[in-house]
Amino acid sequence: MTETIVIKAKRGRPAKNKLDYGNAKEALLRSGVELLTEKGFNSTGLDEILKRVNVPKGSFYHYFKNKEAFGIDIIDYYSDYFVKKLKRHLIDSELPALESLQSFMEGAMQGMDRFDYKRGCLIGNMAQELGSSNENYRAKLESVFIIWQRHIENTLDQAKREGALSKNVDSAQLANFFWIGWEGAVMHSKLTQNKQPMELFAKQFFALLPI
Amino acid sequence: MTETIVIKAKRGRPAKNKLDYGNAKEALLRSGVELLTEKGFNSTGLDEILKRVNVPKGSFYHYFKNKEAFGIDIIDYYSDYFVKKLKRHLIDSELPALESLQSFMEGAMQGMDRFDYKRGCLIGNMAQELGSSNENYRAKLESVFIIWQRHIENTLDQAKREGALSKNVDSAQLANFFWIGWEGAVMHSKLTQNKQPMELFAKQFFALLPI
Repeated sequence: MTETIVIKAKRGRPAKNKLDYGNAKEALLRSGVELLTEKGFNSTGLDEILKRVNVPKGSFYHYFKNKEAFGIDIIDYYSDYFVKKLKRHLIDSELPALESLQSFMEGAMQGMDRFDYKRGCLIGNMAQELGSSNENYRAKLESVFIIWQRHIENTLDQAKREGALSKNVDSAQLANFFWIGWEGAVMHSKLTQNKQPMELFAKQFFALLPI
Repeated sequence: MTETIVIKAKRGRPAKNKLDYGNAKEALLRSGVELLTEKGFNSTGLDEILKRVNVPKGSFYHYFKNKEAFGIDIIDYYSDYFVKKLKRHLIDSELPALESLQSFMEGAMQGMDRFDYKRGCLIGNMAQELGSSNENYRAKLESVFIIWQRHIENTLDQAKREGALSKNVDSAQLANFFWIGWEGAVMHSKLTQNKQPMELFAKQFFALLPI
């Protein structure tokens, strides 16, 4: 019995139940995020994505129409993961609002360090690489930053209620500024291979907040 | 006689005098800058670069060992061009230091607008695309930012002498912060297809400068 299963596996025909399909799709998206974050969209071949998680090409086309459609799904997948991370730091935390923002930034620095500063932010990478050549990607990536911006805006509003930030500050504008600078800092950290640019941006961002 | 020249040209054998070579090299670098800034390094094929300026492949390999070596020369070419631009705004200008910095930023916004926000900063683009996968590029790109940073640092020091900026400010650190945020702003402007992110970063940058 065990023998039969082994042979089937060797033929690359796993049982096609719902769970397997779900796992394969998730595995492809995860593999895509990892490779795209490090190497970029155009440099990452489909075969490499498949090989990394041992999924046959047929399965890929079962879930995704083509590489472009896969790219759009990857943006959603990464954004969902990232929004969970933002919520964990900014909403679920017991910390005062500005300290929760600080904890998010420190978490990001640790994340960069864990991968030797080789992986940046997938959304920033794709924006730089594809934002001006593909309108579907451009619009999608812009919409992701609007969602992320709202989370920082809410945190700044909370800081106002806590008396840690002046009520005269335009939270939406400051949240927009946060992402502009933070994405720049992540890019520079990839280049310097250390957290100094991210640390410097964090320091200056907090320094400019009026109480 | 004219006929003979035409036939020679058709065979792709231009007269090989010094001037032609110089022009061809310059044309290749310019073509590379334009295409790489818009499409990125990996998406731009050698044929496309050659076709744009009508230079045969043989000439390319006369000047550049391979595409990677060409990329390194492009970084130098772009950086030289950019340093001239920085000097024009920051050193040659009759304006007070901080106003000269403002004029540089406004010039950059006009430049982005001229190309419909499709071209960003070549150095920022290449840093994002290649910074973590190719050590030669990473080191080269980092060294470019160090040069650019020095120009902003000198301008901030000049602002101190003019009494427009507190002497307690760390000019080097602030110049570093400038490039972190400015590159992020250029990337976001490519995404929103307008100058709003660059304008917002400029506004916040000047707002945080202590007098």
